[in-house]
Amino acid sequence: MSFSPLINQLIESLRILPGVGKKSAQRMALQLLERNRQGALKLADALNLAMDKVGYCKLCHTLSEEELCPQCASPNRDDKLLCIVEGPLDVFAIEQTGYQGRYFVLKGHLSPLDGLGPEAIGIPELLKRIENAEFEEIILATNSTVEGEATAHYIAQLLAPKGLTVSRIAHGVPLGGELELVDGGTLSHALAGRRPI
Amino acid sequence: MSFSPLINQLIESLRILPGVGKKSAQRMALQLLERNRQGALKLADALNLAMDKVGYCKLCHTLSEEELCPQCASPNRDDKLLCIVEGPLDVFAIEQTGYQGRYFVLKGHLSPLDGLGPEAIGIPELLKRIENAEFEEIILATNSTVEGEATAHYIAQLLAPKGLTVSRIAHGVPLGGELELVDGGTLSHALAGRRPI
Ligand SMILES: [Zn+2]
Ligand SMILES: [Zn+2]
Repeated sequence: MSFSPLINQLIESLRILPGVGKKSAQRMALQLLERNRQGALKLADALNLAMDKVGYCKLCHTLSEEELCPQCASPNRDDKLLCIVEGPLDVFAIEQTGYQGRYFVLKGHLSPLDGLGPEAIGIPELLKRIENAEFEEIILATNSTVEGEATAHYIAQLLAPKGLTVSRIAHGVPLGGELELVDGGTLSHALAGRRPI
Repeated sequence: MSFSPLINQLIESLRILPGVGKKSAQRMALQLLERNRQGALKLADALNLAMDKVGYCKLCHTLSEEELCPQCASPNRDDKLLCIVEGPLDVFAIEQTGYQGRYFVLKGHLSPLDGLGPEAIGIPELLKRIENAEFEEIILATNSTVEGEATAHYIAQLLAPKGLTVSRIAHGVPLGGELELVDGGTLSHALAGRRPI
């Protein structure tokens, strides 16, 4: 009871959003109805349009409604560098660093227990992409999780015979991170990867 | 850069949701595109339908697409009790307690600094509602904020001449609440409102 059927339906629909529980969905639904119907209608349009039109970039396989995403379409980027990530959000994160090479976006990481092998995550497309280009360095920027590491190692081994430089992003203490709050594994990496200053 | 235009538009649109910042909106947009396009389309439909059809209940003024909301339409509730709240979410909260009387939903609370006087929050409609019915008790369940208290007192004074019982929900220590974590004002109310057990 207590909400009318269309409001209940809206609350239920909002719960498909990641991180949105019952209480947040209620608050969202009522706030939209009471204060921002215009915004809600725009959101509905944006959802319809994106779900209908957005596919995958032909080259890097990130999400894009155009054949080539902004990063692949740009003529001003370094064609000798390829950065491999697990998903579109990682492209966004790495763009913030000022990186100016190209990307390849896997569909996540290898996960044999879930039946996700090399084909499922797009390794054949990655190899094709590398064969059809003239990269000099491949940067493995999968996550620093067990699965991300395993995926990076798998790709590194595949690429070993090709005479390319294959690198892995560094592990270490986050900037501004206090040593006492950093876990032991990260700290060992930070020590082992020490450099002269 | 980094996301294509339609994805950026979806991210921006998601940010109208209360509590959704830039990072959450990005995560939501990409998760919908990668894993739940069906759900996203359903959400768009639910938004369109609700924004188009949902208005206000003729009797209690809560949000409802039908002339009478579920609480006003039910023939099985106590017509002698009226509970006054600040918004539709409060109806939901009070329904959870098993309350079986009727409701009146204000449009928030009095807020003279924002230019919100009695007319703006629906006091004339409240008086009309009370005149056209035979309530015996009016429960003031506005929030325990300064504005909610002021609104409750204002209404109590308006209703004083009508010979009705007007009550205010009790203040006190929340169930399961530890005394040392409860603020002083609440604790004074809890002490002053003590009862024999
Ligand atoms: Zn691309
Ligand atoms: Zn009603």
